[in-house]
Amino acid sequence: MDRDEAVRKLTEAKVGRIATVRPDGSPHVVPFVFVVIDADDGLRLYWCVDDKPKRSRGLQRLVNVRANPAVELEVDRYDDDWSELWWVRASGMAREVTSPDERARALTALAAKYPPYAGHPPSGPVVAIQVDRVSWWAAGASRTELS
Amino acid sequence: MDRDEAVRKLTEAKVGRIATVRPDGSPHVVPFVFVVIDADDGLRLYWCVDDKPKRSRGLQRLVNVRANPAVELEVDRYDDDWSELWWVRASGMAREVTSPDERARALTALAAKYPPYAGHPPSGPVVAIQVDRVSWWAAGASRTELS
Repeated sequence: MDRDEAVRKLTEAKVGRIATVRPDGSPHVVPFVFVVIDADDGLRLYWCVDDKPKRSRGLQRLVNVRANPAVELEVDRYDDDWSELWWVRASGMAREVTSPDERARALTALAAKYPPYAGHPPSGPVVAIQVDRVSWWAAGASRTELS
Repeated sequence: MDRDEAVRKLTEAKVGRIATVRPDGSPHVVPFVFVVIDADDGLRLYWCVDDKPKRSRGLQRLVNVRANPAVELEVDRYDDDWSELWWVRASGMAREVTSPDERARALTALAAKYPPYAGHPPSGPVVAIQVDRVSWWAAGASRTELS
C-alpha cells in the first residue's frame, strides 16, 4: 500500500471509527460516517451530527472536540485470513463548520455518498477534520507512515 | 438490544477498535483482536502484542496504556441499510499481565478464538482490560448505557 492507495481506501470506506479525548482525559471511540475532500490545503474530512443532537450518538464526540480538537480515526478490513488485513488511520484537528457555504458543500458530499442523508438531511452541526497525518498498515508489508 | 446481547456481540466480534490516549494527550485508535472473559469480578478483555513488539502495530497502544491506562473500545456493524446499524462500546482500565498463569489462560483463549494464534503463539506482552462500563446503540432503539 502506498499513500495514494491509503487515501483511496480512506475515501471509499463507508464507515470509520473516530477517537477523541473526553474532558476528563479518557479516550472515546465510536463508529461514524464521513466524506473525504482532497483540498488544496490537504485532506479534509467532514462528518455531521444527526438530528436532535441532545440525545444523539454524535454528542459526546462534539463535546470532546470542543474541549480538545485532536482526533484520530481509522478504517480497516478484517478477514479470518490474516494475510488480508489492513488499516488506514488519519489524525488531525477538528473544528465546527460555521460557514453556511462550507456546511452546504459538506452536506452535499455526505448526501452523495450516503443515500439516507439525501432523503433526510441532517440538521445538526457539521465538523471538519483537517488531516495532518495519514498512516497505514497491511499484512505482509512494513508499516509506513507519512505526514 | 439489552446488556446480555451487547456483551454477546462484544464477545463474538472478531475485530474491535481500541482507543487510548498518547502521552501528549492526543487520541490513538487502531483495530485489534481480543477475547472477552466473563469473570467473577466482571468483564475482562485480553489482547496481546504480536511478535517483535519493537516494530509492531501493538507498540503505540502499549506505550499509551503504560502512561494512561484508560481505554475505550468498540465493535460495530455497518450496513448500507441504516436500520441495521449497531455498536457496542466498553471502557475500562488496562494493565499488563505479569502472572504466568494468567498469561497462559489469556493466550489459550486467544488461540481458541483465532486460529492464526494457535499456529503461531504471540510472544509479546499480554494486556488485560477490566471493563467498568458497557454501552450500546442500535438503530431504531434508544441508546442505553449501563455500568
